[in-house]
Amino acid sequence: MKVGDLPTPALVVDAEAFAYNLDTMAAALPGPRLRPHVKAHKTTALAREQHARGHHTFTCATPREVLGMARAGMGDDVLLANQCLDANRLRALADSGARVTVAVDSGATIIAAAANGIREVLIDVNVGMPRCGCPPDEAGRLADAARAAGLEVRGVMGYEGHVVGLEDATERSAQTRAAMDCLEVAHKLAGGDVISAGGTGTYAINTYATEIQAGSYALMDNAYDALALPFKRALAVVATVIHANAKFAVADCGLKALAMDHGNPSMTGADVWFCSDEHVTFAPHAPVAPSDRVFVWAAHVDPTIAKHDRMHLATAIDPDAEVVDSWPVDLRGWDVS
Amino acid sequence: MKVGDLPTPALVVDAEAFAYNLDTMAAALPGPRLRPHVKAHKTTALAREQHARGHHTFTCATPREVLGMARAGMGDDVLLANQCLDANRLRALADSGARVTVAVDSGATIIAAAANGIREVLIDVNVGMPRCGCPPDEAGRLADAARAAGLEVRGVMGYEGHVVGLEDATERSAQTRAAMDCLEVAHKLAGGDVISAGGTGTYAINTYATEIQAGSYALMDNAYDALALPFKRALAVVATVIHANAKFAVADCGLKALAMDHGNPSMTGADVWFCSDEHVTFAPHAPVAPSDRVFVWAAHVDPTIAKHDRMHLATAIDPDAEVVDSWPVDLRGWDVS
Repeated sequence: MKVGDLPTPALVVDAEAFAYNLDTMAAALPGPRLRPHVKAHKTTALAREQHARGHHTFTCATPREVLGMARAGMGDDVLLANQCLDANRLRALADSGARVTVAVDSGATIIAAAANGIREVLIDVNVGMPRCGCPPDEAGRLADAARAAGLEVRGVMGYEGHVVGLEDATERSAQTRAAMDCLEVAHKLAGGDVISAGGTGTYAINTYATEIQAGSYALMDNAYDALALPFKRALAVVATVIHANAKFAVADCGLKALAMDHGNPSMTGADVWFCSDEHVTFAPHAPVAPSDRVFVWAAHVDPTIAKHDRMHLATAIDPDAEVVDSWPVDLRGWDVS
Repeated sequence: MKVGDLPTPALVVDAEAFAYNLDTMAAALPGPRLRPHVKAHKTTALAREQHARGHHTFTCATPREVLGMARAGMGDDVLLANQCLDANRLRALADSGARVTVAVDSGATIIAAAANGIREVLIDVNVGMPRCGCPPDEAGRLADAARAAGLEVRGVMGYEGHVVGLEDATERSAQTRAAMDCLEVAHKLAGGDVISAGGTGTYAINTYATEIQAGSYALMDNAYDALALPFKRALAVVATVIHANAKFAVADCGLKALAMDHGNPSMTGADVWFCSDEHVTFAPHAPVAPSDRVFVWAAHVDPTIAKHDRMHLATAIDPDAEVVDSWPVDLRGWDVS
């Protein structure tokens, strides 16, 4: 099947660019130096490609992602880099057969983990972004509480999410260092071997962390593409032109197929005007006609993929390219049954 | 089960507000005066409530929605208010057993409909929003072409999508009239009994259309709630507090659970700071603690629902309220197999 024969809208992965991204990252951060973040793609078939390149440790944002990785046989060492207080879900992780480590940042999260069979934790530290994580100087107290509850404290994590997207590389480096200074304070207090941090925007400059939690590097998006990283945009949405006139055209790919939290998508050979639920209105640089295929590039990859039930690997982002594989986006939603 | 026992994040519908909205609309636009838009909820169980209140004609944005309505036994008269050039999908609609009417706005869409067994069409007219639809003065030519291709032209449609969200009611009325002036020109040229238009924001002021395509009225959202319409916000996302400190708190409901195209959500008893993939960071007005449930109100209802696989009806938007039903969001995605 050709890309131009896919029912639209559909996610298309440039297999070559994707492989280049994985190879580039595996060379920079081999094996356990990278703990690929599954939330970026929610696709066990894609994770298998990361696994095949030597990364056997994974990061997840939801219990469902962790369980899916365990069931897919990639549960050697999976980190839930998120707080969970749901007893049923924690119990499901504990019983999954996988080695599951859970982030904790409070007495409540420690108690929930210990009470539901979790054995290993990281102390999650706030390194500057107002989200989860304890203050650095509380990491020792929490580590003590976790150990007292019978948990193994593997170390600390602290995600510099306020830094990974900074376009100024010098500023990004300086702020990464400042964030990791916080994490160092916490690590000295909490102990353990693991210092987990980082993302696609800081994978090369965060030299303090023992492992980097990057995920977007595999497929990239317009936001990360602005950072001049050595990764290629590998994911587009293929759409069909359903209307064209002298001023603008419309394709069948709207905000139900594209994440809008980072703003409008871009298009190859066109200027995007706006998205509706099932439409993108755009000004093409050269005339298009109904039934033509066009390619739309999302501003933010993670939530874009989460809107689709599969992604198609192709030899290129081109209507005439061959579709070589089709992967279910099997870790969507939050259900752990 | 209580709302506070639902695994989070989860969609919760206030059953009373929902029934009020449906009753209010059925009184204002009884029976076929309303052609409820299925894209707003993608849920056949919800459509069944609209059907039970006398609305037996429906509007859909995707072939999948049309097929799902047909398979659910609500295919008396379903309009695909969107252009489709996909032969397989058009053929599936034609063979569905439902009475399916398709919007056409070009020679290409007419040829595709006629070639794949579609029998009835509406001429889609651009009434001011740059999306699909022919210029009003081309409606007659297209209607002639459709009839020459063997299609029954039931009338015209023209969605004043650029008007439905205007907060100034006077301006909304004036612009609705201007849009319907365009549609009147087209209708005189095209003929047919049906003049289909409108949305939740113009359901009461668009008195020209023979039928209104409103959908959001059933559950509402923050954007429409700003228009002082007689409908109540009936849908929230319930989330669990997973982190709390003296300055802010975090709950497990992020931009993978909430549409962001209309901006940030709001929260009951809190100011939202920002959303990440699986988190909302907020400043609560009164202290919250881990495991507390909070309610998040989406800016835009349609794409929010499309991120979830079910919605839960409850006696109130309250952790202690009873969950009385659970409906699958069964018309998501674009697959028609």
